[in-house]
Amino acid sequence: MTTLTLCTPSSSSSSSSHLSCCISSSTTEDVRLGSPLLRRQFVFYTNWRKGRRGRGASCGISCSAEARTVVIGLAADSGCGKSTFMRRLTSVFGGAAEPPRGGNPESNTLLSDTTTVICLDDYHLLDREGRKEEGVTALDPRANNFDLMYEQVKALKAGVAVEKPIYNHVTGLLDPPELILPPNLLFIEGLHPMFDPRVRDLLDFSIYLDISDEVKFAWKTQRDVEERGHSLESIQASIEARKPDFDAYVDPQKQYADVVIEVLPTQLIPGDNERKVLRVRMVMKEGVKYFNPVYLFDEGSSVSWIPCGRKLSCSYPGIKFFYGPDTYFSHEVSALEMDGQFDRLDELMYVESHLNNLSTKYYGEATEQMLKHGDFPGSNNGTGLFQTIIGLKIRELYECIVAEKSVTPLEAAKVF
Amino acid sequence: MTTLTLCTPSSSSSSSSHLSCCISSSTTEDVRLGSPLLRRQFVFYTNWRKGRRGRGASCGISCSAEARTVVIGLAADSGCGKSTFMRRLTSVFGGAAEPPRGGNPESNTLLSDTTTVICLDDYHLLDREGRKEEGVTALDPRANNFDLMYEQVKALKAGVAVEKPIYNHVTGLLDPPELILPPNLLFIEGLHPMFDPRVRDLLDFSIYLDISDEVKFAWKTQRDVEERGHSLESIQASIEARKPDFDAYVDPQKQYADVVIEVLPTQLIPGDNERKVLRVRMVMKEGVKYFNPVYLFDEGSSVSWIPCGRKLSCSYPGIKFFYGPDTYFSHEVSALEMDGQFDRLDELMYVESHLNNLSTKYYGEATEQMLKHGDFPGSNNGTGLFQTIIGLKIRELYECIVAEKSVTPLEAAKVF
Repeated sequence: MTTLTLCTPSSSSSSSSHLSCCISSSTTEDVRLGSPLLRRQFVFYTNWRKGRRGRGASCGISCSAEARTVVIGLAADSGCGKSTFMRRLTSVFGGAAEPPRGGNPESNTLLSDTTTVICLDDYHLLDREGRKEEGVTALDPRANNFDLMYEQVKALKAGVAVEKPIYNHVTGLLDPPELILPPNLLFIEGLHPMFDPRVRDLLDFSIYLDISDEVKFAWKTQRDVEERGHSLESIQASIEARKPDFDAYVDPQKQYADVVIEVLPTQLIPGDNERKVLRVRMVMKEGVKYFNPVYLFDEGSSVSWIPCGRKLSCSYPGIKFFYGPDTYFSHEVSALEMDGQFDRLDELMYVESHLNNLSTKYYGEATEQMLKHGDFPGSNNGTGLFQTIIGLKIRELYECIVAEKSVTPLEAAKVF
Repeated sequence: MTTLTLCTPSSSSSSSSHLSCCISSSTTEDVRLGSPLLRRQFVFYTNWRKGRRGRGASCGISCSAEARTVVIGLAADSGCGKSTFMRRLTSVFGGAAEPPRGGNPESNTLLSDTTTVICLDDYHLLDREGRKEEGVTALDPRANNFDLMYEQVKALKAGVAVEKPIYNHVTGLLDPPELILPPNLLFIEGLHPMFDPRVRDLLDFSIYLDISDEVKFAWKTQRDVEERGHSLESIQASIEARKPDFDAYVDPQKQYADVVIEVLPTQLIPGDNERKVLRVRMVMKEGVKYFNPVYLFDEGSSVSWIPCGRKLSCSYPGIKFFYGPDTYFSHEVSALEMDGQFDRLDELMYVESHLNNLSTKYYGEATEQMLKHGDFPGSNNGTGLFQTIIGLKIRELYECIVAEKSVTPLEAAKVF
């Protein structure tokens, strides 16, 4: 049952100051593997973002049709650097992404002036205890509320605010919802942004972060053994336990992604087991509107490039790039690969100067973005570089969508 | 014993119409592994090339000092495409290179308006019979007259005409000499252009054509079995018999070359034995005055490039380039490698458009040169491409040397 009423938002977890009107919607949820689990009330708000178009506030169907939120999906396993990725992406749009002020301290949301990042763990249908009882992992679709995910992402995309649940990672419980206002850019990150076809269709751009098993193990080892005192065996067991569901429900989403970032063992150090030097491969789908894949030297041909040489000296094991056309799940793609790591600023600048279609606004912007977050993990390798590049590409995509929306009414007017 | 007298050339094998004065020199030669073999008279002519500098004819020390012949050496084994190489090189300077008109039909010399190619076989000290008697091959320095080679190349370089012997490849005998006038560019090609340090020092630029054993065998097989009806065993035996002297006296010259062209088996066809598709590698010495090595995309880094892809379609096995810095006999070098072959004109144009430092005078000149000699062997692979490029590089080198000579007297005048 759904009721729509006009309302004014009062929650403190607002991501926008441009709210002028809203629609409240209350629904009764009753899903848990067929048995009652959650009773949730959620609210939809309609938000007219005057800041985006420079127009005065107004409310109606036209506002959501003309100035919708651009939605980006990021899929990846937990503990694989999604939050670093998100901070890099939102940074390109200016301002730091912070948790909502004054709200639930365990909120998983990140807000900046123009962007909102929501974590799809918030759409867990089952809390930790519930998953245990039902014998399902968080990776299992049955533990997640795709109907609500779809409804709320659709609402936000249409410019309608929502009251989104919060999954508390500390307690493992579902906390009371927080208000999410429709931002200019909505990032949805988590295990299943492309799992449900309805949600997938709402995405203007999608990214899959594909960490190879070897690197995933090394990363989890570093975090859980060195920082949390777990044993190697328990980490291995936890990875193994997750693997069937991961392979069944998370991994297949990569076929739908517009960009996949693969994080692989280096090929520069024979027999490397440290996994500190990484080979990172960015697989970019061809033919995606407003997304022109990055290339090296000659678009559409295959190039491998070791920039370290006569003009640029690098320390062991150096840096190696590869670029070329490929196919990925029968899609035509371009792949850009970086093996190795940057030691010095001039290496990064040199590399930036030879990459094309970076969607920077000025020479050196990618390097500047990388330096701004030099303390983030992966700042000296392909993960940081490609995340930064994807941020720049998304900014361009966003600006194109906005420009298209600005042009369309005028173009349409010519018809009459 | 040497006598110098002024003279006027009368021989028909003249390479230049700009001759205005000459010096005749007659010498008694007496060398043959310590025993008397040849008694040769040779003549030096001084040639003032008014065409080169646009000045009127004059004669004296100044003419040879100001307008010397630029000398290029090409070393390679016999039957390895030296004459095709020479035709390509001289073609860049305009006009066809032809044997001297009206002279000995077995002359090994090629003349064009500005270039002269002399074959160093003409400096054989021992004729075929003599070599048999002495038990030496033509590859053995003792079968060659390096003193005469040095004296005559030095004379030509200084603008003095010479009477050069002719080795008759048909009879295996030494025929009466032919007059060689100092050209703008003198190419000396043969087994030993860089063997004698005195001759080597006279070279303004040097090239070594390095055919791998596998390819050499395939080429000789094709020529001697298919065209001359020899047996495979006899070809193998002949190659084996030449190998020790080749390795001892010819091969070591490559360390002195400014450019080495290596002709190698393809790596594109696993287990290829046909040797029809070739991998050709051009090793270019760094720091050679007026010679800037060709590069691909980014000077001084390492790049491999498969141009065949989304923009350019190629038939099997495609084309693959490699470029990068390297060392060669402890010299710093740049290497450019092409594996595979061109099937169509657009492939060649595409490749030309991505090579840098080609020393062309206009866009497409390298392709034009290749097409001009489309019927020459190697026109569809790296041998033809790199020979053409070397021709363009030598033209630039020649023009720089001439420009330097033009500038030097003015620069010198400023001192006073």
